[in-house]
Amino acid sequence: MHTLLRDRSAASAEMLAIFGDASLLRAACRFEAALATAQAAEGILSPAEADGIIAACTSPDIDIPGLAEAAAHAGTLAIPLVALLRADGAAKIHFGSTSQDLADSALMLQSAEAAALIARDLKRLANAAAALAATHATTPMLGRTLLQPALPITFGLKAANWTVSIDAALARLQHECGKSLMLQFGGAAGTSAGLEGKAAAIAERMARDLGLACPILPWHARRDCVAGVAAALAIATGAIGKIARDISLLAQGEVAEAFEPRQPGRGGSSAMAHKRNPTGCQMALSASLRAPGLAATIFAAMPQEHERGLGGWQAEAAVLAELFCLAHGAIAAMIVVIEGLEVDAARMAANLQSAAVGNDIGEAAKMVASVLAAREKTE
Amino acid sequence: MHTLLRDRSAASAEMLAIFGDASLLRAACRFEAALATAQAAEGILSPAEADGIIAACTSPDIDIPGLAEAAAHAGTLAIPLVALLRADGAAKIHFGSTSQDLADSALMLQSAEAAALIARDLKRLANAAAALAATHATTPMLGRTLLQPALPITFGLKAANWTVSIDAALARLQHECGKSLMLQFGGAAGTSAGLEGKAAAIAERMARDLGLACPILPWHARRDCVAGVAAALAIATGAIGKIARDISLLAQGEVAEAFEPRQPGRGGSSAMAHKRNPTGCQMALSASLRAPGLAATIFAAMPQEHERGLGGWQAEAAVLAELFCLAHGAIAAMIVVIEGLEVDAARMAANLQSAAVGNDIGEAAKMVASVLAAREKTE
Amino acid sequence: MHTLLRDRSAASAEMLAIFGDASLLRAACRFEAALATAQAAEGILSPAEADGIIAACTSPDIDIPGLAEAAAHAGTLAIPLVALLRADGAAKIHFGSTSQDLADSALMLQSAEAAALIARDLKRLANAAAALAATHATTPMLGRTLLQPALPITFGLKAANWTVSIDAALARLQHECGKSLMLQFGGAAGTSAGLEGKAAAIAERMARDLGLACPILPWHARRDCVAGVAAALAIATGAIGKIARDISLLAQGEVAEAFEPRQPGRGGSSAMAHKRNPTGCQMALSASLRAPGLAATIFAAMPQEHERGLGGWQAEAAVLAELFCLAHGAIAAMIVVIEGLEVDAARMAANLQSAAVGNDIGEAAKMVASVLAAREKTE
Amino acid sequence: MHTLLRDRSAASAEMLAIFGDASLLRAACRFEAALATAQAAEGILSPAEADGIIAACTSPDIDIPGLAEAAAHAGTLAIPLVALLRADGAAKIHFGSTSQDLADSALMLQSAEAAALIARDLKRLANAAAALAATHATTPMLGRTLLQPALPITFGLKAANWTVSIDAALARLQHECGKSLMLQFGGAAGTSAGLEGKAAAIAERMARDLGLACPILPWHARRDCVAGVAAALAIATGAIGKIARDISLLAQGEVAEAFEPRQPGRGGSSAMAHKRNPTGCQMALSASLRAPGLAATIFAAMPQEHERGLGGWQAEAAVLAELFCLAHGAIAAMIVVIEGLEVDAARMAANLQSAAVGNDIGEAAKMVASVLAAREKTE
Repeated sequence: MHTLLRDRSAASAEMLAIFGDASLLRAACRFEAALATAQAAEGILSPAEADGIIAACTSPDIDIPGLAEAAAHAGTLAIPLVALLRADGAAKIHFGSTSQDLADSALMLQSAEAAALIARDLKRLANAAAALAATHATTPMLGRTLLQPALPITFGLKAANWTVSIDAALARLQHECGKSLMLQFGGAAGTSAGLEGKAAAIAERMARDLGLACPILPWHARRDCVAGVAAALAIATGAIGKIARDISLLAQGEVAEAFEPRQPGRGGSSAMAHKRNPTGCQMALSASLRAPGLAATIFAAMPQEHERGLGGWQAEAAVLAELFCLAHGAIAAMIVVIEGLEVDAARMAANLQSAAVGNDIGEAAKMVASVLAAREKTE
Repeated sequence: MHTLLRDRSAASAEMLAIFGDASLLRAACRFEAALATAQAAEGILSPAEADGIIAACTSPDIDIPGLAEAAAHAGTLAIPLVALLRADGAAKIHFGSTSQDLADSALMLQSAEAAALIARDLKRLANAAAALAATHATTPMLGRTLLQPALPITFGLKAANWTVSIDAALARLQHECGKSLMLQFGGAAGTSAGLEGKAAAIAERMARDLGLACPILPWHARRDCVAGVAAALAIATGAIGKIARDISLLAQGEVAEAFEPRQPGRGGSSAMAHKRNPTGCQMALSASLRAPGLAATIFAAMPQEHERGLGGWQAEAAVLAELFCLAHGAIAAMIVVIEGLEVDAARMAANLQSAAVGNDIGEAAKMVASVLAAREKTE
Repeated sequence: MHTLLRDRSAASAEMLAIFGDASLLRAACRFEAALATAQAAEGILSPAEADGIIAACTSPDIDIPGLAEAAAHAGTLAIPLVALLRADGAAKIHFGSTSQDLADSALMLQSAEAAALIARDLKRLANAAAALAATHATTPMLGRTLLQPALPITFGLKAANWTVSIDAALARLQHECGKSLMLQFGGAAGTSAGLEGKAAAIAERMARDLGLACPILPWHARRDCVAGVAAALAIATGAIGKIARDISLLAQGEVAEAFEPRQPGRGGSSAMAHKRNPTGCQMALSASLRAPGLAATIFAAMPQEHERGLGGWQAEAAVLAELFCLAHGAIAAMIVVIEGLEVDAARMAANLQSAAVGNDIGEAAKMVASVLAAREKTE
Repeated sequence: MHTLLRDRSAASAEMLAIFGDASLLRAACRFEAALATAQAAEGILSPAEADGIIAACTSPDIDIPGLAEAAAHAGTLAIPLVALLRADGAAKIHFGSTSQDLADSALMLQSAEAAALIARDLKRLANAAAALAATHATTPMLGRTLLQPALPITFGLKAANWTVSIDAALARLQHECGKSLMLQFGGAAGTSAGLEGKAAAIAERMARDLGLACPILPWHARRDCVAGVAAALAIATGAIGKIARDISLLAQGEVAEAFEPRQPGRGGSSAMAHKRNPTGCQMALSASLRAPGLAATIFAAMPQEHERGLGGWQAEAAVLAELFCLAHGAIAAMIVVIEGLEVDAARMAANLQSAAVGNDIGEAAKMVASVLAAREKTE
């Protein structure tokens, strides 16, 4: 939407940068440089030809608004971008490639960076939740089901459940990304034509160079990999949203068992000086509301026409970028919340007492211990 | 997403401007100025107090990245913005108001501008489709059902159906906007407290001043109006997508009955010089794929908590803005397509002949005439 | 899903009946009978031919599982159904018509019945909410924003907001249904071929007979009307979900301000004898979670191919039926809740006192009165 | 929706049976019997107590409509069902368990059966596609991008892409199910209270007995496993939809390169005797339109409240069942299509010739061979 005031509230600055215009250009140039390098190694280009391309692709000086206008008109970024680079001494740039090769591979490069950022921060969030679980393994509180008083649990068990869900979200995302973040290189119709039988070798070199998986076939119209990543992001966001839901309910005035940390300038109200709004939870809940429709969009785009879809393929990149931004925005917000969570164990005890549902916490403490032990083993 | 390369391909420059940062600031300032004006008229503020506010709100000099950072931290735009304006001599700005009043009213102001743009261009598109219907009222072509040859129709009847669907989309949007684009003004908890019993009078003045409807109650947690506008936009986008679907199918090489106009620099391929891609249809089809998930997001946000939701409310503005952008991007793209459509009536006749399904066009011509006559009457 | 155990929990028995197999058959037969009647009136059929059709269509004796199997195999209900009826003495049944005419018109007939049921119960629910608003116009309670204590409101103002949102949902649905519940009658490719120029007259007669609107053109591939009804249902469901959200939050043990009425056998737990679960709210919240994705599906189906889509059109009927069922299930559940709501005004006062946010209820009572007065006027 | 006429068109009879009422009852009874067996083994129940439960759970005689009504009233199936079984001599049935344990575990049991059915048929479909790839590895045809003529490919390469996408869908689903189809057993608030410290041992026995995975913690409010299965189903359905899209486009009259097999009584039109509609593709495309919104619903339900959500949890089962039904309906339909596909290689050659885009099929044949070789190795 090209609006900072709205996007900056939903996403982290780090993730916005990964999917910003400069990063997209950089990823596109990395693709072209890797292509030239591999083609030189396979004897398709001369070393000099490749060097010209690599030079043009290293910190290219490009007017982004102008390029955006040209790409919108052309219906594809590759045509005006390749023309600009070609004019800059890269005569044989993009040889044997097509617009989609560049667009998909660039998206995968951005996604790999983005997934690494998310993995880094999911780990941090899981560790913070696990620390809460350890500290409060035996802190009794009221378990609540269907928003009604149920039976006693411990706060540590609640936090252990959060931990397990974050670990699961991370495992799912990493499994998916390991398989799905693939090089795209198939040429105009996916047959790798015009490359003297060396397409597979070139693709392997490029994939290694770019740190992407190398698919058994170009995936121009086989979009389950994009859908799989989108699903993993939506599920991670939903898991974070569940934690935010819990904390926002615990922070209600009448419950008052846990609170986001106080931060100057955050959570205030323009009309009520006393307010201490759960702003981190708000960001995570917003993200978890927005992610499902975006994942659904990518699923809905899957039945693409023939060798390159019309409309479906072109809808994916912006939507996937938004999913990464929302997921990371949620994670980043909740790191602050979980790492600084204020827990009022006395109030938990008092609320439990009021509910008059006994004191049997069952095997809660044992369950927490088993989760923490299992995590330790896998580290 | 703050990325020009991706957004500019999906949206018109006009619509991106309406939802850009500068416009949002302008709308927020219009809200504050209208509030001050109305409060002065009702004797809540002195003329001098109001003048100070109005002056501060007229072309305020604000660092947008800094404000965005502050708003992301605060969890709301109003707090840092009002602080900036207040420091600029507007001591009693925002009196009796709350963050949401500003945010919702600003969104409604942007939506009103956006809806006007869409209405302008839907009319133009409908007229272009009606012109095709008139020209080709009796041009026989093959009707196709379930993607199979069915029976003869006329191209004019197809275009008449497009026309009726655009007219219907416009009527639905205008009906909805007439009711739903409302001033928001309820104060901290929606009780219009602190205004000496003059809240209703102030609201009426503000609504008139800003060109918005005046609701019977503040709608802080009653979000059907946002949902209604979102639905109307998604439906309009779907109706445009249907036209794009038809034309993209007619433009297939083996069918070859209608084509987007040739435009230098549009529709080419980075790998195939002969390509003439239906880029306008592509944009419309992408938009119609993305709109449903966005509308669903706004529907899903409706069950908001108490007097102001946590997460749901905050998800709406960016999503609604995106819907407006996608809808208008689709409309603008199809205006070019429909106004410049190349129709090959001879090929239509030949394909019809090949299908061997006879020549009975039924009452097609009469039907087209009745649509065009009905449109003339309502103008 | 053909499962009573799951469907009956989400939908009312009345609405399940409207969209059950027997009703679909009845609606299909009503369409054929109305077609025959109109064709006889216009001289296309002889009175005897029409009488044979009408007789066959009056309580036809049809094996539903067998018909379902045949329809699944054929890919359309009309073919095996018409064959059965034709064998039953209705030789000229379905003349000039096509499968979609029958399917769409039957869906519209079912939708009209369903919309009437929803209107009846939305009115009842709105009246119940209005009664709460009147009773509690000045009952002070804590207003809560972002799930935090905000400022005082009255419970009547909260209920007045519910009332306004139900009224709005009803108005939107009725406006939409008035325009969108239309006869479908266009023949094989929408040209009304084979009817001696009398198609328009036949359609008008049929529409009048069946109580449906008569469209300016057959709408076989122009699906905004289905989308509009779906949107209105999703929005109504979201508005009901908001009420359920509020009540479920008020019923929390620590808040304890309002409760669903006690009903023997409802809201219990298989493990906790003390539980009093907000089961009505649960049904409404489930429905409001499920409706958005269903509406999105119908929006996504809009870009249909040519004169009858492949896949998109065929997806609509089951999804629209589910939306009607979920919407009515939510409404019916909340009627019980709102009509029997137990309000604890003393606890409201105590919670407000604890929050220490003062006692200024602003213009709440005046606002409630204005809503109730406006409702009285429109009745 | 309890309607055979609509459901039977979207789903296979086999899958409808797995999610039918009788199966749900059977799964619930299997859960209770496994619980009793494990509790007896761990000394929580006496052998006689367990035997009574197992007997009651073996072919119980239950009035389904009556039970459905009671469950809808109660808001949960477990309460009336357990009461019925208890009355039938199973005094200590459900001991230490809660409604959700039964409901979730039953859903997982049904899902395991359903996933096995899908795996069986995805394999068959992949093999059929691989056979097409082998047969047509060097059959030249026109590659089409953005619905325009692009460059030559081979039909075998297209089919190889289908094959790879089905294999990937199957692998994703099996990986997910292996992790996510878990026993649920946590008792009222997920603490496994009241089981004398033997909860973990009981759970392990039950999981082994029922063929489900045993989670590290009960997952009552940690719903990523349901979401993961839903995502895998939606992605599989999208991959099938892509194949259907291709074939439906190839079967257009003007293209005429591939056709669904002729089947008596399928694909006809009630108005046009010549029609041969691609009914299998229609079913798959409908399913791929409906699946995304359903998966999104399950994602949206993830942020559940505390130890058992209100509304979100209760929305999942019907939606997941529908996803399984749609996915399998699509697969079953496409097995018929792919196994019987009529390929017109001469027409492919002629269309390619007409497009005048040369004859270079690049490395298509080599690519097909590498896919087939890789598949052989993994079998």
